[in-house]
Amino acid sequence: MTYRPYNNDLVDGLGTERSYGIDESLVRTCEVALSMGRLDDLDGFIEGLHASELADLLEALSSESRYLLFNHVRGRLDPELLTYLDDVVREDVLEQLGPAEVAAVITELETDDAIDVFEDVAAEEQAHVLARLSASNRALVKQALTYPEDSAGRLMQRELVSVLKDWSVGNTIDYMRERAADLPRDFYEIYVVDDDRRPVGTVPLSRLMRNQRDVRIDDIMLTKLHSAYLEMDQEEAALMFRQYALFSAPVVNDTGQLVGVITADDIVHVIDEEAEEDILRLGGVREDDFYEAVLDTTRARFSWLLVNLGAAIIASLVIGLFDAAIEQVVALAILMPVVASMGGNAGTQTLTVAVRALAMKELTPANAARIMGKEVIVGGINGLLFAVLMGFVAWFWFGETTIGLIIAAAMVFNLLTAGFAGVTVPLLLQRMRIDPAVGSAVVLTTITDVVGFVSFLGLAAIVLL
Amino acid sequence: MTYRPYNNDLVDGLGTERSYGIDESLVRTCEVALSMGRLDDLDGFIEGLHASELADLLEALSSESRYLLFNHVRGRLDPELLTYLDDVVREDVLEQLGPAEVAAVITELETDDAIDVFEDVAAEEQAHVLARLSASNRALVKQALTYPEDSAGRLMQRELVSVLKDWSVGNTIDYMRERAADLPRDFYEIYVVDDDRRPVGTVPLSRLMRNQRDVRIDDIMLTKLHSAYLEMDQEEAALMFRQYALFSAPVVNDTGQLVGVITADDIVHVIDEEAEEDILRLGGVREDDFYEAVLDTTRARFSWLLVNLGAAIIASLVIGLFDAAIEQVVALAILMPVVASMGGNAGTQTLTVAVRALAMKELTPANAARIMGKEVIVGGINGLLFAVLMGFVAWFWFGETTIGLIIAAAMVFNLLTAGFAGVTVPLLLQRMRIDPAVGSAVVLTTITDVVGFVSFLGLAAIVLL
Repeated sequence: MTYRPYNNDLVDGLGTERSYGIDESLVRTCEVALSMGRLDDLDGFIEGLHASELADLLEALSSESRYLLFNHVRGRLDPELLTYLDDVVREDVLEQLGPAEVAAVITELETDDAIDVFEDVAAEEQAHVLARLSASNRALVKQALTYPEDSAGRLMQRELVSVLKDWSVGNTIDYMRERAADLPRDFYEIYVVDDDRRPVGTVPLSRLMRNQRDVRIDDIMLTKLHSAYLEMDQEEAALMFRQYALFSAPVVNDTGQLVGVITADDIVHVIDEEAEEDILRLGGVREDDFYEAVLDTTRARFSWLLVNLGAAIIASLVIGLFDAAIEQVVALAILMPVVASMGGNAGTQTLTVAVRALAMKELTPANAARIMGKEVIVGGINGLLFAVLMGFVAWFWFGETTIGLIIAAAMVFNLLTAGFAGVTVPLLLQRMRIDPAVGSAVVLTTITDVVGFVSFLGLAAIVLL
Repeated sequence: MTYRPYNNDLVDGLGTERSYGIDESLVRTCEVALSMGRLDDLDGFIEGLHASELADLLEALSSESRYLLFNHVRGRLDPELLTYLDDVVREDVLEQLGPAEVAAVITELETDDAIDVFEDVAAEEQAHVLARLSASNRALVKQALTYPEDSAGRLMQRELVSVLKDWSVGNTIDYMRERAADLPRDFYEIYVVDDDRRPVGTVPLSRLMRNQRDVRIDDIMLTKLHSAYLEMDQEEAALMFRQYALFSAPVVNDTGQLVGVITADDIVHVIDEEAEEDILRLGGVREDDFYEAVLDTTRARFSWLLVNLGAAIIASLVIGLFDAAIEQVVALAILMPVVASMGGNAGTQTLTVAVRALAMKELTPANAARIMGKEVIVGGINGLLFAVLMGFVAWFWFGETTIGLIIAAAMVFNLLTAGFAGVTVPLLLQRMRIDPAVGSAVVLTTITDVVGFVSFLGLAAIVLL
């Protein structure tokens, strides 16, 4: 890429070819400077960085270097830095700060970011931090913590501008000028509420500017409101933003009163988090452990592998049932993984589409039967195609028509099973309130392994012995 | 959930318990009404629906019902409806419309949405649609089509408000009032450009309202701009939005001039798409085929399964090398899938974290060696733990210490390999410019299968024969 985008603080600050973010050479330079104790040499670099870039730099450094660099910058810390850090790294640096410093950071952040940071303070330190907040900030933090984790209440900003619906454009503009000190520094729309503080509309600021002072607010407001409520799961909120392509949404309490606002940039973060969760869980990882220490990572992954060991042993027990057949025809042992693995792969394809469709609320009881039918047909057709292919391979390899026919029949049967189980397993797990992204894969491959081995070896035992 | 959020057009319109979206009973009611030909009964329902909800309804219906319902509403079509439809369904309904109707829809949409819709018009119809657009709209569509697919140029809106940096607040407000007809209906900030039309800052409308008429625009503008360029991949643009938690970003052309704007709600859609792509590809599915017809789905999945068949046959060939050992000790055939499957699962864990970290630009050549070291250690520790576990299981099962020791040794070796390959494979594929999400899984499991079988059967052949 030869074109360098116009980008005032970045291209100038870093001289990098990338259009955003930090450079690898910067990371290396820092590591070297830190290891040589030449911290002051870095000040030039660091001052040119956006808070999110300094966060990236801290994440990219080894933990010793990170400690040194953070210690060097903690005196002139931009509170925003903490909002950009990965959870694991954030916990680390928060430990480095004393309660007074953490309290100062939290005071400067907007409510949603402040809560995010506070959640990562070690449990035994939280009381010390709370004690150092002002009474009003302490109340805000405590209140936000009463909302469930990952809820709209934690995600929202309390800072917003609202006016009554019977106000005029003139009233509103005067109010905004007079109360400037109490209002957010920058904002883009105004919420309109009724006498009970229920949201009834929004007014983009552009409409305020274009209308005469005597126009009533409720004559120019947008009335298609989609509200989130405090306890709403952030995933639900994200689905609502997608559904209506929203830019922002009011958050209401139990009695429908306006208490905060969620904006699309908050949702970007949520969608990222939720997608990451699904990707990782489908891969058998509970949480992003990229920055996690070796032992924590090992422990977290162990439990998933243990479940898989159980599944593998079940498959082995099934094979063990047919030891006589294998002893007589060793070709069975050679070919049996093919049937199991093709079933596993076909099932995973179906499963992936089904889990994604469940998350997007596209797969519902209303269309489950239709989708299941489709997947079984797809499995059946591909089963037939691969039956022919693998049947010929086995026939040529071992020079036995019977082996070819047996593997062909097992293949069709296992791919039909895979299509059926690929939709059914996530649906059943969901009904049992187990996250389909977590459990589906292991249940599915256990099924396709068992069915694959039983159909292939069982058929062989009947035909050959 | 007993609480029903305040939500004016939804709760009233549909009487649903969900806080957004359509109800299953609605889908069923529609299917019945359509099958009975009582289309007019549905009008009451349909009028209460948001365009995105009608889109969901069309997606949820069987294809015959969809055809009937769309035919019924095409006369009073809200153009927005098309922007909410899944690609596959959109192609279907666009076929139902004639070129004149499609042209009318495209004329009413904003540039980014118009292009989205136009792309899904059948290739042989596109010329007919273009011919029916006004000259200026035709030029806009043609221009947008010169930008690469999934680029910032296709994503941006051209509709924006920009002023020169030496203007005053007064000039700006007057301009907005006088030119109201040419400006977007609603907007939230103003772009500031220099004499060459390069963006130099933005002014949230709230700042315009709070400042006196004689204040210069460049004294109140925000100067931290992060620009996208026309050819920038939408995935890069999304990473930039995440990096700086942006609300909007200007798009510039080759000479750095402002040509459009991307907002966070566009990015929500991109992130969704990109995350979906990664999830599906890791599961061996090329594209979301949830709404795709049976034969298209079968064909698309076949090629991936064919690759997997190749991998499975390689594993079988490896097993075939040790047929003598299996013939003598049938326990080997029974236990061998355990070693291979544990390697595959452990490798998939590492791989998933690595592929995600690559997509987020967290895994880079700068930290690759460190992450690889970590994953090998994690693999080694878990390998030892599962070696002990599985060693005892095999010993008790077959009453042979040797079998237990052999499977233990093979387990450690395969889990070390899995940790190493889990990071290396995606990095190598990325270097070879192959999407790591597509190819990594099959390459990895081939490696862990082969290494698993060779180490277990090979060791057994040496020790037991």
